[in-house]
Amino acid sequence: MARKILVTGMAGQIGQILCRELSATYDFVGIDRKPTPSGLPEDFHVAEIADFDAIRPRFDGVDTVIHLGADPSPRASWDSVLDNNIIGTRNVFEAAREAGVRRVVFASSNHVVGYYPMKDDPYRAVYEGRLADIRHPIEPLTATHLRPDSYYGVSKAFGESLGSYFHDAFGLSVICMRIGWVMTPDDPSFSAAALSLWLSHADAARFIEKCIEAPKHVGFAIVHGMSDNELRIWEKDDTRRIVGFDPEDGAGETWIERPGAPKPI
Amino acid sequence: MARKILVTGMAGQIGQILCRELSATYDFVGIDRKPTPSGLPEDFHVAEIADFDAIRPRFDGVDTVIHLGADPSPRASWDSVLDNNIIGTRNVFEAAREAGVRRVVFASSNHVVGYYPMKDDPYRAVYEGRLADIRHPIEPLTATHLRPDSYYGVSKAFGESLGSYFHDAFGLSVICMRIGWVMTPDDPSFSAAALSLWLSHADAARFIEKCIEAPKHVGFAIVHGMSDNELRIWEKDDTRRIVGFDPEDGAGETWIERPGAPKPI
Repeated sequence: MARKILVTGMAGQIGQILCRELSATYDFVGIDRKPTPSGLPEDFHVAEIADFDAIRPRFDGVDTVIHLGADPSPRASWDSVLDNNIIGTRNVFEAAREAGVRRVVFASSNHVVGYYPMKDDPYRAVYEGRLADIRHPIEPLTATHLRPDSYYGVSKAFGESLGSYFHDAFGLSVICMRIGWVMTPDDPSFSAAALSLWLSHADAARFIEKCIEAPKHVGFAIVHGMSDNELRIWEKDDTRRIVGFDPEDGAGETWIERPGAPKPI
Repeated sequence: MARKILVTGMAGQIGQILCRELSATYDFVGIDRKPTPSGLPEDFHVAEIADFDAIRPRFDGVDTVIHLGADPSPRASWDSVLDNNIIGTRNVFEAAREAGVRRVVFASSNHVVGYYPMKDDPYRAVYEGRLADIRHPIEPLTATHLRPDSYYGVSKAFGESLGSYFHDAFGLSVICMRIGWVMTPDDPSFSAAALSLWLSHADAARFIEKCIEAPKHVGFAIVHGMSDNELRIWEKDDTRRIVGFDPEDGAGETWIERPGAPKPI
């Protein structure tokens, strides 16, 4: 029998990718604050995750929660982050605990370490496309780095801490995905930062499937979801070891190396 | 002229120690939700830190904020932690930013890594007083460790992240103190965990003074406030290097080594 997977934020970009790529594999239930666009599962519910009572019934019988629901903007106000990302995320973990869900896969973000590439070389040189200034090999950013660049980034770090607590206190399996940049259209060639951060649609679906299927002994982990980009600055070995994710796509850096070359987008 | 120091949670245990030990050095202003006990500064105000407008006027002209105000219980409910520790801490940082405060010294806690000594040896063996099971040297817990043991611990990790963001985004100097255990009476001999965690009253005052006076180049840091206890499991070298704190007190382990010896308390 297919796993029953509850996706919060299902009407968003990544939710729709999951629905398109993995509907044959899983039995999806969706929650979102937005009314359903086309292409979502029949079992879809409009609800605010900040409202515990409104979302709680959807967790019964669920195997895995994919928690994508959030104000996704790094420019989000404190009030919006507080309701949607902090209170909402606590509600999702608490509802999962109450309902006896097996695992929560939480959408964290590169923004929990966003000030490294905004401030410090060599990461900053990567984001700015100053390839000549980069000394290789770059020491990758890992699960123990933390330097949020916004209230949004702080809220994602909060969700990781909360997941660690729910794992240790209640035995809930929690995998936090530090996601790079999933974009539509699925082409990162418009900037060096995008070439570094890119997670292709196909890799996003593969990555999340790996997080759902990771072995039972994975109790708590923070892993990285970026494609195999030449300008990648986040670890990939830990992620491969823990959940078995090997990206199949990857962005080169060729366009940057040709000064004056027209940017594809 | 003495620095003007705003202390949130001034009516609490550590606030009262500061008032007693450092009133000759600094010009204190206090905020607390509780009415003033004896021995507090004249400039003391009853206000909830969850109420931004109620506390904002107290930040004008302040050099350093010592942010101790919080629900201090590891058993605090989510609702209390949300109001007092999450919303309250954001209000304190935001008010400090608005008012142009030089530095915020934030009371974080050993509870941000509390599950290490509750679950994993050798830390657990220390807390349980199983000295024979400890392999030396113990690899100390550092600023990059994170494993909160409660909503309280999660809220303190949140405050650290928020401080990192406020430093990077707004140039506010932020020092986060992972405090061990300040207790009254000032005697940790009642348990192995207390002997490990002890921060004596005198060391607490010295430690916080060092955090206030640390050089300007200390923009953001997470440091550890425990006395020089033989059973200490947290780093002290980074803390000495960053803020210059060298504990002068320290708890031995002698009573544990004598099975059957009466426990002093």
